[in-house]
Amino acid sequence: MTPGTIYGVGLGPGDPELMSVRADRLLRQARNVAFFRKAGRPGQARGIVEGLLPQGVVELPMEYPVTTEIPVTDPRYNQILSGFYADWTARLRQVAEAGEDVVVLCEGDPFFYGSFMHLYTRLEGLVPLQVVPAITGMSGAWTATGQPMTWGDDVLTVLMGTLPEADLTRHMAESDALVVMKVGRNIERVRRALHATGRLETAWLVEYATMADEKAVKLTDVEGYVPSYFSIVLVHGQGRRP
Amino acid sequence: MTPGTIYGVGLGPGDPELMSVRADRLLRQARNVAFFRKAGRPGQARGIVEGLLPQGVVELPMEYPVTTEIPVTDPRYNQILSGFYADWTARLRQVAEAGEDVVVLCEGDPFFYGSFMHLYTRLEGLVPLQVVPAITGMSGAWTATGQPMTWGDDVLTVLMGTLPEADLTRHMAESDALVVMKVGRNIERVRRALHATGRLETAWLVEYATMADEKAVKLTDVEGYVPSYFSIVLVHGQGRRP
Ligand SMILES: C[S@@+](CC[C@H](N)C(=O)[O-])C[C@H]1O[C@@H](n2cnc3c(N)ncnc32)[C@H](O)[C@@H]1O
Ligand SMILES: C[S@@+](CC[C@H](N)C(=O)[O-])C[C@H]1O[C@@H](n2cnc3c(N)ncnc32)[C@H](O)[C@@H]1O
Repeated sequence: MTPGTIYGVGLGPGDPELMSVRADRLLRQARNVAFFRKAGRPGQARGIVEGLLPQGVVELPMEYPVTTEIPVTDPRYNQILSGFYADWTARLRQVAEAGEDVVVLCEGDPFFYGSFMHLYTRLEGLVPLQVVPAITGMSGAWTATGQPMTWGDDVLTVLMGTLPEADLTRHMAESDALVVMKVGRNIERVRRALHATGRLETAWLVEYATMADEKAVKLTDVEGYVPSYFSIVLVHGQGRRP
Repeated sequence: MTPGTIYGVGLGPGDPELMSVRADRLLRQARNVAFFRKAGRPGQARGIVEGLLPQGVVELPMEYPVTTEIPVTDPRYNQILSGFYADWTARLRQVAEAGEDVVVLCEGDPFFYGSFMHLYTRLEGLVPLQVVPAITGMSGAWTATGQPMTWGDDVLTVLMGTLPEADLTRHMAESDALVVMKVGRNIERVRRALHATGRLETAWLVEYATMADEKAVKLTDVEGYVPSYFSIVLVHGQGRRP
């Protein structure tokens, strides 16, 4: 029996028309579709493909066992997540070994801070794997600001809002253009680091980039606002431009 | 007369199937298509859309007046380029003001170190403008290595190979994951900076990512090799992974 392939398919930042032609084709002919979601939620990635999947497709929602209940520093956090990924690795492998392809839906680009990577590294060498790159959330975000992001020799640094404030500050001081992801409740720490490095005045906040409820504002215009997890802070580069 | 819209349409890293559904749609119904190229060359962006454009489309090749003949530090370099962008701004504006849409082809994502940005900032406020984000060359490149790029709280820094060696070294020392674009003839400087920061052994070189002549190799396996302008060096992050 020829095994099926497990496809990690990037869906882009959210607007279904920003999916690649390949992603669109794979989805419309999919037989098994797996996607991560929080328990009791429809799932961000699943939402993007609404109306695209063929009749009779088998849906495999992979529900995170923990998200914010246990702190990431608690050793149990890693243990529980690791078991969860091992379990889904086994289940998807079984489907592939029965000869069927599986499409795993990924927000943005699969290899860029994506959850699929935890399945990918576990499945490597066991079943055929393919990854379809996609438009990242940050590309969607800077497009939403209506301003080019990086010019000439600009240095761009991508930071996670979950980093300690001292790390954020140190990296922000060194870079021309900045992207901060996983902002959400980390927003005040991100603000302080931007302020400390003189970048607050020019920073933008983009929430739900390219989606129906997209919001792109100067960060100083929304003091005190706590954005959702699906938000990015960015500072545009100012490099050489003839 | 309602003016036409000028679309900056990202084409992605090179594989035509990695174009977005929106880019594909805009191209198939385009009446005017503009693209940058070196004089006497077919043009990288134009190559990606080969076979997609409708019959009777008007093609507007925008040929760079200088590229490598004059050093970028020479004031004439900026002057000549600036005149070239001003000239094409006027010409595209004229087409739009005559009521016709223009699609400007962009390699990768338009707002990420793209040439279209020089037209965009000049056309802003004069004619309707729209930008279609796309998959970046770097997403194509890390997908080609078959290894996830960034994990957990990894810091990613994007550098241009044209930067002075001291700057490359300083930034490389501070970051977890690295992307170096515009490599080409700057490869030896990039190698030295990677070596100085202990990153050479794990660095990859990706040339023509997602294209027919894609090449993804460990940098240490191709000593002395001078890649084309269309190449990216990258070092994967090693962050937290349950
Ligand atoms: C686990 S990372 C996944 C990144 C994704 N693989 C990508 O390529 O963008 C989740 C973070 O991505 C960012 N993000 C992704 N898509 C976004 C969008 N459409 N609007 C705003 N932020 C987005 C947010 O910062 C969020 O916290
Ligand atoms: C002027 S920048 C344009 C970047 C583009 N806007 C993007 O989003 O990737 C040109 C550089 O992009 C990189 N690049 C773009 N596409 C690439 C590909 N398919 N393979 C390798 N490098 C690529 C190369 O480093 C090249 O020197």
